[in-house]
Amino acid sequence: MDVKERLSCLRKLMAEKGIDFYVIPTADFHQSEYVGEHFKARKFMTGFTGSAGTALVTKDRAFMWTDGRYFIQAEKQMAGTTVELMKMREPGYPTLEEYIEQNLPENGVIGFDGRVASMGEGLTYEELAAAKGGKVIYEYDLVDQVWEDRPCLSEEPAFILEEKYAGESVAHKLGRIREVMKEEGADVHVVATIDDICWTLNMRGNDIDFFPMVLSYAIITMDEMALYIDERKLSDEMKEKFAADGVTFHPYNAVYEDVKKLNADQTVLVDSAKMNYAIFKNIPAEMKKVDRMNPEIQFKVIKNDIEIENIRKAQIKDSIAHIRFMKWVKENVGKMKITEMSASDKLDEFRVEQGNFIRPSFEPISAFGEHAALCHYTSSEETDVELKEGALFLTDTGAGFYEGSTDITRTYALGEVPDIMKEHFTLVAISNLQLANAKMLKGCNGMNLDILARKPFWDRGLNFNHGTGHGMGYLLNIHEGPANFRWQYRKNDTYVFEPGIVITDEPGIYIEGSHGVRLENELLCKEWQKNEYGEFLCFEPITYVPMDLDAIKPEVMSEEDKRLLNEYHATVFEKISPFLNEEETEWLKKYTRAI
Amino acid sequence: MDVKERLSCLRKLMAEKGIDFYVIPTADFHQSEYVGEHFKARKFMTGFTGSAGTALVTKDRAFMWTDGRYFIQAEKQMAGTTVELMKMREPGYPTLEEYIEQNLPENGVIGFDGRVASMGEGLTYEELAAAKGGKVIYEYDLVDQVWEDRPCLSEEPAFILEEKYAGESVAHKLGRIREVMKEEGADVHVVATIDDICWTLNMRGNDIDFFPMVLSYAIITMDEMALYIDERKLSDEMKEKFAADGVTFHPYNAVYEDVKKLNADQTVLVDSAKMNYAIFKNIPAEMKKVDRMNPEIQFKVIKNDIEIENIRKAQIKDSIAHIRFMKWVKENVGKMKITEMSASDKLDEFRVEQGNFIRPSFEPISAFGEHAALCHYTSSEETDVELKEGALFLTDTGAGFYEGSTDITRTYALGEVPDIMKEHFTLVAISNLQLANAKMLKGCNGMNLDILARKPFWDRGLNFNHGTGHGMGYLLNIHEGPANFRWQYRKNDTYVFEPGIVITDEPGIYIEGSHGVRLENELLCKEWQKNEYGEFLCFEPITYVPMDLDAIKPEVMSEEDKRLLNEYHATVFEKISPFLNEEETEWLKKYTRAI
Repeated sequence: MDVKERLSCLRKLMAEKGIDFYVIPTADFHQSEYVGEHFKARKFMTGFTGSAGTALVTKDRAFMWTDGRYFIQAEKQMAGTTVELMKMREPGYPTLEEYIEQNLPENGVIGFDGRVASMGEGLTYEELAAAKGGKVIYEYDLVDQVWEDRPCLSEEPAFILEEKYAGESVAHKLGRIREVMKEEGADVHVVATIDDICWTLNMRGNDIDFFPMVLSYAIITMDEMALYIDERKLSDEMKEKFAADGVTFHPYNAVYEDVKKLNADQTVLVDSAKMNYAIFKNIPAEMKKVDRMNPEIQFKVIKNDIEIENIRKAQIKDSIAHIRFMKWVKENVGKMKITEMSASDKLDEFRVEQGNFIRPSFEPISAFGEHAALCHYTSSEETDVELKEGALFLTDTGAGFYEGSTDITRTYALGEVPDIMKEHFTLVAISNLQLANAKMLKGCNGMNLDILARKPFWDRGLNFNHGTGHGMGYLLNIHEGPANFRWQYRKNDTYVFEPGIVITDEPGIYIEGSHGVRLENELLCKEWQKNEYGEFLCFEPITYVPMDLDAIKPEVMSEEDKRLLNEYHATVFEKISPFLNEEETEWLKKYTRAI
Repeated sequence: MDVKERLSCLRKLMAEKGIDFYVIPTADFHQSEYVGEHFKARKFMTGFTGSAGTALVTKDRAFMWTDGRYFIQAEKQMAGTTVELMKMREPGYPTLEEYIEQNLPENGVIGFDGRVASMGEGLTYEELAAAKGGKVIYEYDLVDQVWEDRPCLSEEPAFILEEKYAGESVAHKLGRIREVMKEEGADVHVVATIDDICWTLNMRGNDIDFFPMVLSYAIITMDEMALYIDERKLSDEMKEKFAADGVTFHPYNAVYEDVKKLNADQTVLVDSAKMNYAIFKNIPAEMKKVDRMNPEIQFKVIKNDIEIENIRKAQIKDSIAHIRFMKWVKENVGKMKITEMSASDKLDEFRVEQGNFIRPSFEPISAFGEHAALCHYTSSEETDVELKEGALFLTDTGAGFYEGSTDITRTYALGEVPDIMKEHFTLVAISNLQLANAKMLKGCNGMNLDILARKPFWDRGLNFNHGTGHGMGYLLNIHEGPANFRWQYRKNDTYVFEPGIVITDEPGIYIEGSHGVRLENELLCKEWQKNEYGEFLCFEPITYVPMDLDAIKPEVMSEEDKRLLNEYHATVFEKISPFLNEEETEWLKKYTRAI
């Protein structure tokens, strides 16, 4: 069956259900950053394989909205399918919402699988339909009925993250969650976020690309945690262990019917921002809802002492790997064939040597020259290029060790590079160091601090068009809320820093067609001092990889900037040299010398 | 009648109305920063004359909540009155809300004059009463019935601020307001903020201490502006002028009955955060309400070109006055008797010389030595001290010229001062200059930028416990929302900077029992550059008074800090020297020299 035939099958099903417009997003049931094969419904229906896009099928047309990264690829892949490309943020193209608004017939019906739509999306479709006197139908996954050889849901086994890594027992975590439920007057707590569930149960798995998590839902009451999961993923030992903590086991998708049966006289604690539309809609409307941040989120953002000890170990391991990689790439570029992809593999080799390595913690970015100017660049066989002297090479990659996840970006000068690249590299270094050096009264959030990283750019009329940092999950999502560095105000995104938070510090600069620079360390938020003015916090950079001195222009730096760089490099040498051989140590000494 | 007798009268009235607890705040009907004599009800009922405090009268007790500034004064003034002092933020004392919560009887009734309670206060009392199955009664001003010789409401005449100062006609302003009403689908707009009304009508007056405004309310529809005002304040000429713009005249307090009569089928635009409880409650509950920032607020925060031209003139005038004052105080301290109060008078003399001076723009702060460590210090006959060499002297004062309001703080070294004072002074100068030098992408708010001012302090474990800057009214409130510099997130306080905003930049440091430093300039927000990264804004300091070089320690400053100070001082000399005589010019040259 080709795309045209698939679309025609889908339209038949739409007609049966009385659906005018059917929306197919790129998502799983948990709004995961990466989705498994089972969830690639949009790809199946349109032929377009890019990582981002939303399809809309009407009675006689079909559309695909995607962004500038994918225009060429999407046009090529969808040629002859009748699916029309809608270029996002390009003049002349309506957004999905605008298209629906302008074209949905009177009393029109919008259909979608409510499990793959976020609450926000679902509500938008509701409003758009209501404006035409119509409605939404979210109960059916029509693509599933067209997709005969659909890949199964992942059946990969789950495993226990031992307490020597997790640092807190399941019973204790459940106790803390239930305390919040009591404070909020909630009898029951519905959880749809797999990282929150994996954190609570000290469980990990292999159901999502890169992030070692398990597809699941949970309904927590005062004496039970109903876990919705493919039971085959759990060993008998795990089941026994969980059962001892009051966990009961239910089929993964049974949650949708079970939430309908919740006692309407009770109060439910939910985080509607972290739920798909269907699960929220299925909770009895009459139930009193405490809609707030999942307590699991507020707990897991603060890493416990054992987690921190482990994270420090993971960072040391990955720093050693990076330093060996930096030496290797600088010494071998131009001498042997190194490409973006082979370089990335080499870095992972150095990681594997460190032991306890599970897998990369996200899709690696390995970008040479102008490729690095594309923030979301992923090297593929079509784009892979050889590294050469005279340009910058950027790697943004991470490791999942049992001791925690890392996310490190370095940009290296290969041979001698043009002055403007050095100047930009130096600005990024200043930016990274100034933010890491922030001192703050307790109560600050990322919006307060972000300008410390932007200042070197903004003072020169430059900017980087992404956040400066994100919270880090411990073998969970690599981008873990709610802590972040970002300057734009967003409602409900004003989380204040607390000791124990681990956050990335990753400013950059991107010059289209030329080069890109980003430097990313992990920072640990710590207590600094208490005095009559209040409680001050500070950050400690816990990533120990040199900022390439071959690309630093000292004359761009203030005395304070130089002091911060020299102090950082002295720490890098102190922390990492004990793990290196003599030759490596000498090399590191040179690349961490004071300037 | 003494306080005891007044309380007993009040209790009789409370009993008649069935009120258990009666609350008397310190406020007028418009939540003004300063209140006229008519509104000093709390002072009348308790004998306590301080500027802040809330009284609570129960059937058998009476309490006064006030803050640390006033503990001694309140105890003295309330001795023998039976009013008990409740020390705010002191251990062992409940807050007003806690006291009510713990002591209001079942089915208890809380009474207050709804016109002097903010919406927030009124709602809190409602909740506290509801929790006991009781209610609030807000319709009566019981103090008025006790207070036989109560001062009348101000009868001072209003006047027109000519268009050469205001820069926009009343018709044009009303047109813009009505456009917002249309966009919001509102038929009627109720305004309770006197600065918004005075701005709309280009009207000023004399009803409030310091701020030249007129007590009034307004109800704006598409073809009428019903003005609630004591009509005797308006000349015939003004009435004619206003009538031509569709203004009708109604008794000041008639608004409370008139809002009850609004058409319940219509939509009303209100800013509930800028209203007293009574007026909001009197609007028919069934009316559809668009509750948002008053359009007048969003308009008047952006000064028009004529206002800006005038404000620049006012700042030049006040800068000349300040420079003459600085020279005078430095040359005469120790030689003649100068006190805090006489110094303040002298500064106003220099202002009067500049012409078009209306009055001080707020209650002046003139604080010598340790007095300057008290942020809210006001010199009085009891506290006035003589200025002496060897310490710092702080003035935070402002002028209302027809060309606009100023608010300038300078701290001067009198003779040679201890090193720690110089160090603190230098930090404040750095802080002020760094904030003024901010460059930002459009979209930034005060929370984003505040750390530029805090950094010199936070890096040293210091802080100042107040905001760093506030928007400035043009002969209206000196503290004018919604623009500000502040680091703490507050809901609905995320106003982004726009070109045309005038805001203060006033960091400080306060060392109890020793000294205080604050330096305050006005900044004008301007466009800086547009490029591929977006639209950048910057600030221009428009106050031109030296930062006393006798108190600067250059070794505390970075090269950039020194450059900023030297550039600022060069501008001060360039802008002000043309207005000075030869001797003054020479003196200014010395105090604006590059370091």
